[in-house]
Amino acid sequence: MNVIVGGGVIGLSVAWRLAREGLPVTVVDPAPARGASHAAAGMLAPVSEVSYTEEPLLRLGAASLGRWPAFADELAADAGLDEEFGGSGPGEAARRGLDLRADGTLDVAFGADDLAALDELAAFMDKLGLRVERLTGRECRRLEPMLAPSVRGGLLAPGDAWVDPRRVTAALLAALDRLGVPLVRARAAGLLRDGETVTGVRLDPAPGVAARELAAERVVLAAGAWSGELAGVPVRPVKGQIMRLRSPQPLLGRCVRGTVHGAPVYLVPRGDGELVLGATQEELGFDTRVTAGGLHELLRDARELVPGVTELEVADVVAGLRPGTPDNLPLIGAGEAPGLVLATGHHRGGVLLAPLTAALVTAGLSPGAEILTGEEGELAELCSPARFREIS
Amino acid sequence: MNVIVGGGVIGLSVAWRLAREGLPVTVVDPAPARGASHAAAGMLAPVSEVSYTEEPLLRLGAASLGRWPAFADELAADAGLDEEFGGSGPGEAARRGLDLRADGTLDVAFGADDLAALDELAAFMDKLGLRVERLTGRECRRLEPMLAPSVRGGLLAPGDAWVDPRRVTAALLAALDRLGVPLVRARAAGLLRDGETVTGVRLDPAPGVAARELAAERVVLAAGAWSGELAGVPVRPVKGQIMRLRSPQPLLGRCVRGTVHGAPVYLVPRGDGELVLGATQEELGFDTRVTAGGLHELLRDARELVPGVTELEVADVVAGLRPGTPDNLPLIGAGEAPGLVLATGHHRGGVLLAPLTAALVTAGLSPGAEILTGEEGELAELCSPARFREIS
Repeated sequence: MNVIVGGGVIGLSVAWRLAREGLPVTVVDPAPARGASHAAAGMLAPVSEVSYTEEPLLRLGAASLGRWPAFADELAADAGLDEEFGGSGPGEAARRGLDLRADGTLDVAFGADDLAALDELAAFMDKLGLRVERLTGRECRRLEPMLAPSVRGGLLAPGDAWVDPRRVTAALLAALDRLGVPLVRARAAGLLRDGETVTGVRLDPAPGVAARELAAERVVLAAGAWSGELAGVPVRPVKGQIMRLRSPQPLLGRCVRGTVHGAPVYLVPRGDGELVLGATQEELGFDTRVTAGGLHELLRDARELVPGVTELEVADVVAGLRPGTPDNLPLIGAGEAPGLVLATGHHRGGVLLAPLTAALVTAGLSPGAEILTGEEGELAELCSPARFREIS
Repeated sequence: MNVIVGGGVIGLSVAWRLAREGLPVTVVDPAPARGASHAAAGMLAPVSEVSYTEEPLLRLGAASLGRWPAFADELAADAGLDEEFGGSGPGEAARRGLDLRADGTLDVAFGADDLAALDELAAFMDKLGLRVERLTGRECRRLEPMLAPSVRGGLLAPGDAWVDPRRVTAALLAALDRLGVPLVRARAAGLLRDGETVTGVRLDPAPGVAARELAAERVVLAAGAWSGELAGVPVRPVKGQIMRLRSPQPLLGRCVRGTVHGAPVYLVPRGDGELVLGATQEELGFDTRVTAGGLHELLRDARELVPGVTELEVADVVAGLRPGTPDNLPLIGAGEAPGLVLATGHHRGGVLLAPLTAALVTAGLSPGAEILTGEEGELAELCSPARFREIS
């Protein structure tokens, strides 16, 4: 039995891919799909999110974005979304059922300093062979007429995409249910060990759950920000507050990002008219309070980008905890103890990196799996949990 | 039978006082205590809310504030709050059960223009014989250490008070229940008439309500912003958005008000650590959406007054509709049609004016009531619905 600790987008994706391979799987989570995945905006934007020091993260993101269309199509089929959106063309179930869209991200600039930074970023992306287009302020407003008049230029990453994470986790839960994967709604309180070897998980008491322990050949730790507490891995909570607005008609045709008052802000439009504003980044430990200051920051900065947001209704405000790591790269692969596999530390990239993470874990755990080779091997190396063991 | 249309703070107060006099009463409201009273901050601040053109409103407010302590004590007793807070001293049940506090309001100023306006207001209040104290910025911060350093002066109205409107309406509902007053949870769709005379109300279908009509000798219209639709009186909805924050320890010892970016903002501290930020004033018809712009305005302005609010958790955000009138004075007394009594149009002052309104309506409807005389007569004259009939 493979016990997956954590029912967020990572844990559910891993569980789904393992179950598809015919491996026995159980998922443990007291509240599946209600953690960071519930708060996530769902940007699949490795290009516009790149920064100079994070070329490895860009490689991971680009590789995972490439896997998203097939991942979404298969998920839509396994979750029964094909039936709901029956008769539609290829990719339609993923597009309508998961709100997967690939209309690009527009990164905008206000002042002269911002513009200079965009120019440098464009040059850097060129060097990496990434598709971007440098736009004037006028060209930006032609693409997105609701942008503030003060926007002076932008960088369009036409290959970036986005998806609705709540629909994705709902589809994953439906697919797991159809595959007969048990979901244990209890909190994993700790790991069971036989000497060094991890042999299962200990459960907190929960309504309707009789078992107090689950034995496992392998425990896959996908507990997000709580992974550090369970297995001592270097993962810390990074709080994010996010707001969902309701728009009678779509204000934007694509994701829009910018840096306002020194803080990054983004707006993600959904197919149903919802507009997501995100997100604060706060180092406050396990604090999930929605605060006056957090909302103020989001609203102030979003207004600078798209003044029309002020007219929109506030539908939802949530705070979530991203699982941050010291180098902003995830931890995927064999843990220090035999029997423990890590799939955590995805920080801001859990939704984007879910297909790649599930593929790497599945490849490592499938019967007869060898050491990964080629590009997969290189990507796996970047995420290897061993990098922190070597340091310490 | 006296049918009270509207179960907000005004309708419930009128019903309670009439029932106490032994008059037969029924209250009609599809969702009692969930309208403007639910959104209200509960400032009982006639002095600090005064403006030059509104001396009549100040008279009404001061008269009603004077009635609040006895009103609250009797309400606490009738609602059984005395039992809950048994053994405590006089006024304790009202103080603890209704969160009635009388620690004053501090109106603060930032710029030179604001200070000059405060000086003029102080002089005006002096002329009216009202108790106010002009304070320096340092004195303001000595009273309220969490005030922004940029506060340059203030005006303290030590006699102003405040109360928790949600506790007040809950207590009124409890008192009515104990007095056996029926509450019909249906919407009054219109007035029944026999010629000119109002003879009852027509009800919309509602779960558990068999009656489609309620006959009445008198209909008291206390339907707030919806009064205009029901009886053609000059009442319009004035939208207000308000936010409740949760504070581990109280940030403020009294109500604090100020004008920021030209808009008035106030902060009302509750006994349980809650801090209420209010309120937008928007002329948008029957629109109760909480909007991005509304929240932004509240948060931005509250931060200017008390920067520490940014750390507080957001507990609740609501929008309500104040019943505005052309002259900002309420409509209390006989309507144009026989059988119709008005108790509506209280705009921002429903909670403050509830005791006076209930007293005026009760005095007018009690058996053997004569035309009101003395101060009550003068106050009743100010609120008389006849003033709009004479104009038209």
